[in-house]
Amino acid sequence: MDTIKYTLSENQIPQSWYNIQADLPTPMAPVLHPGTYQPITAKDLEPLFPAALISQEVTTERWIEIPEEVQSIYRQWRPTPLYRARRLEEALDTPAKIYYKYEGVSPAGSHKPNTAIPQAYYNKQAGVKRLITETGAGQWGSSLAVAGAFFGLEVVVYMVKVSYRQKPYRRAFMESFGARVIASPSDETQAGRKILQENPDSTGSLGIAISEAVEVAVQDEQTKYSLGSVLNHVLHHQTVIGQEALTQLEQAGDYPDIIVGCTGGGSNFAGIAFPFMGAKLRGEQSDIKFVAVEPAACPTLTKGKYTYDFGDTAHLTPLVKMYTLGSTFVPQGIHAGGLRYHGMAPLLSHVVDLGLIETRAFTQLDCFASGLTFARSEGILPAPEANHAVKGAIDEALRCKEEGVSKTILFNLCGHGHFDMQAYMDYQAGLLRDTEYSAEEIAMALSGLPVIR
Amino acid sequence: MDTIKYTLSENQIPQSWYNIQADLPTPMAPVLHPGTYQPITAKDLEPLFPAALISQEVTTERWIEIPEEVQSIYRQWRPTPLYRARRLEEALDTPAKIYYKYEGVSPAGSHKPNTAIPQAYYNKQAGVKRLITETGAGQWGSSLAVAGAFFGLEVVVYMVKVSYRQKPYRRAFMESFGARVIASPSDETQAGRKILQENPDSTGSLGIAISEAVEVAVQDEQTKYSLGSVLNHVLHHQTVIGQEALTQLEQAGDYPDIIVGCTGGGSNFAGIAFPFMGAKLRGEQSDIKFVAVEPAACPTLTKGKYTYDFGDTAHLTPLVKMYTLGSTFVPQGIHAGGLRYHGMAPLLSHVVDLGLIETRAFTQLDCFASGLTFARSEGILPAPEANHAVKGAIDEALRCKEEGVSKTILFNLCGHGHFDMQAYMDYQAGLLRDTEYSAEEIAMALSGLPVIR
Repeated sequence: MDTIKYTLSENQIPQSWYNIQADLPTPMAPVLHPGTYQPITAKDLEPLFPAALISQEVTTERWIEIPEEVQSIYRQWRPTPLYRARRLEEALDTPAKIYYKYEGVSPAGSHKPNTAIPQAYYNKQAGVKRLITETGAGQWGSSLAVAGAFFGLEVVVYMVKVSYRQKPYRRAFMESFGARVIASPSDETQAGRKILQENPDSTGSLGIAISEAVEVAVQDEQTKYSLGSVLNHVLHHQTVIGQEALTQLEQAGDYPDIIVGCTGGGSNFAGIAFPFMGAKLRGEQSDIKFVAVEPAACPTLTKGKYTYDFGDTAHLTPLVKMYTLGSTFVPQGIHAGGLRYHGMAPLLSHVVDLGLIETRAFTQLDCFASGLTFARSEGILPAPEANHAVKGAIDEALRCKEEGVSKTILFNLCGHGHFDMQAYMDYQAGLLRDTEYSAEEIAMALSGLPVIR
Repeated sequence: MDTIKYTLSENQIPQSWYNIQADLPTPMAPVLHPGTYQPITAKDLEPLFPAALISQEVTTERWIEIPEEVQSIYRQWRPTPLYRARRLEEALDTPAKIYYKYEGVSPAGSHKPNTAIPQAYYNKQAGVKRLITETGAGQWGSSLAVAGAFFGLEVVVYMVKVSYRQKPYRRAFMESFGARVIASPSDETQAGRKILQENPDSTGSLGIAISEAVEVAVQDEQTKYSLGSVLNHVLHHQTVIGQEALTQLEQAGDYPDIIVGCTGGGSNFAGIAFPFMGAKLRGEQSDIKFVAVEPAACPTLTKGKYTYDFGDTAHLTPLVKMYTLGSTFVPQGIHAGGLRYHGMAPLLSHVVDLGLIETRAFTQLDCFASGLTFARSEGILPAPEANHAVKGAIDEALRCKEEGVSKTILFNLCGHGHFDMQAYMDYQAGLLRDTEYSAEEIAMALSGLPVIR
């Protein structure tokens, strides 16, 4: 029994991005100004983003039209394939049906170009010359580097230092597309220098890298900031994943009982889950169990607090209500660098708070083991981030086997692991360690949260 | 102007492999036994290959049916996309139309699974338990590792030592799929020990690795040998590439004036070119210029001799008539490891000898420069091997610009460069050097050719 691929014709690429806010029972908490703690206005965001993206950030309209210029580039790799993992089902001897949406076919090998392309497009339209961003594992930086090359935009990437060291080839990839890559914390920004002064050996974090990128972006009118996850507009852009999967499952004559995705900032999970969740909220489709999987080494949803916090370490960003471990939390240097963020997308956090999603945390050794089981069955070596979703899906499939029920599981394989071979080498050599935090450590991290009066 | 993708539906995957021998004006020279120098029989090949593959190796029938089990796995990534490189055309400001067939979407990231899957299938059918092979850059070894995992076959790979060192992540990839990888020359075989005795610092060659693999394969009935290029059946398997491209270009309403591919053993070039060449030979289609591009550091077609030679260094394989630099020739350690073979597929050599193909040799610095131009336009970072085809296609496009003519160019982008980032880092750091051979060096290499009476 081989893997089955479900494709779509190009004219079945979604025409609009989906905004789940239109279908939620309650609105999101307002975003607060970091100085005044008052709700921010669109104007406050103008130094960071072009008007079109700010408008997408604040709208509660259900559908946002995808410009033809963006669709034209999407068509280079979209629709991405949906696979029925029959070889994996056989290997697990499970009665469950396992489907996965594979985003690794994009130019950068992950789901990130789904938002990098429109972000570069809108910035180019607004006359911007240079984009500054941060990256964890490098998937986001790679995607923005490619998008920058397509649109003739200069791209500068602050790369979390532990990943910069672990993944020199990700850096080389970005540089091949003309991007400049700087290890963060760096001595090029006030935020970076402050961190280095306090801890010269800092391995960095996404929170620190965001501080550096934001600091540089606001200094120049022709320079804007670009973020690869967390923000509403990023989550909207990723919904092309779930919309395509919906159509592909229709083609397969199936519908999921369970949807699994990994969560770092939240965008790939939202991308696969929200279109299905919207159908459920609108009463158009039956119930689905949504499972968000995060690393035990950065347990934002499972051990964090739902409260106002800064998006970055130096407190330059607005305050958002989200699940957070505290903006000064520096997660351990695990290999799933894309999941090492202290917070979680406010929109996804709101949905979790509404009780619409179950959350799980897994250790990296378990995730790598699942990743290899998957690879040998399906022929695709997943990124360490994606291994969390794989592990989540395999667990659900094994539960089906125990209970003797045939459920339909859909998960998002958000990227391939071609740039993560050191992690696989270390895993196979027995060099990787699992780490979890004690309640005291979590409490300590959370004690630095801002007090909003 | 964005890149355009041409896809096909799954039922447009070729049902048969194409064998160009049926359409050639003269037959190939016979293969000779290494002991007797007499034409070999099918029986002589039985210790190495299962009967089904031997039959494909010797047949002159035009079409070989693709088993449904192989088609079922092909469908996991085939049909591969054909792209019209409009962004590259724009960057080159050429009136030419440039199309490329992209084989990097396969599980191993290259065209090699097109033959790894059927080879594993036929061996499994024949009750074989273990496949032994060699690999240069690692693309072939990766492909056989994946195929072995799918069919439950043990896979052992002798990897050319220079690549083993340059590309530890390719090795890790193969090991992730359960293969055992050994640096060649090794001390596990007589052939390897002999080489190491003469030159303990030998960086290896495909010729040496083939000797080691063949030596081990013949020692055990349940073990067979598997080759990733050169042989007739391998070239046939790769013709799915060109057959799909033919249909996709029909869909685009176009037909190539020029077809470009890189040549190491010859299989990816044959894969894209032969179906078009067959149409031309049968008088069904107009004339096409075929351009085979090889590295100046291993100039088999441009400086080698068309004569009988051994496929390996230790002279364990049959003698075949082919373009060769001599079986003891060890090419310089360039990064396009997949093109470092002293010989060339006998079937492709025969076609070159018939005057049906033009040949070019390019240095690696030029090829990397072309690869980066391509990447920044098209978003795909090519493998160093594929950069040779890219350079060939760009040259043709620039010639069109000079001459003010709009020709249609098709080339095969046989794989991505995700496992070749060290090469790109070295190139961008200015660490790579060009090397060419003097006439004396080539004459010296050729002086060791066997004398067939």
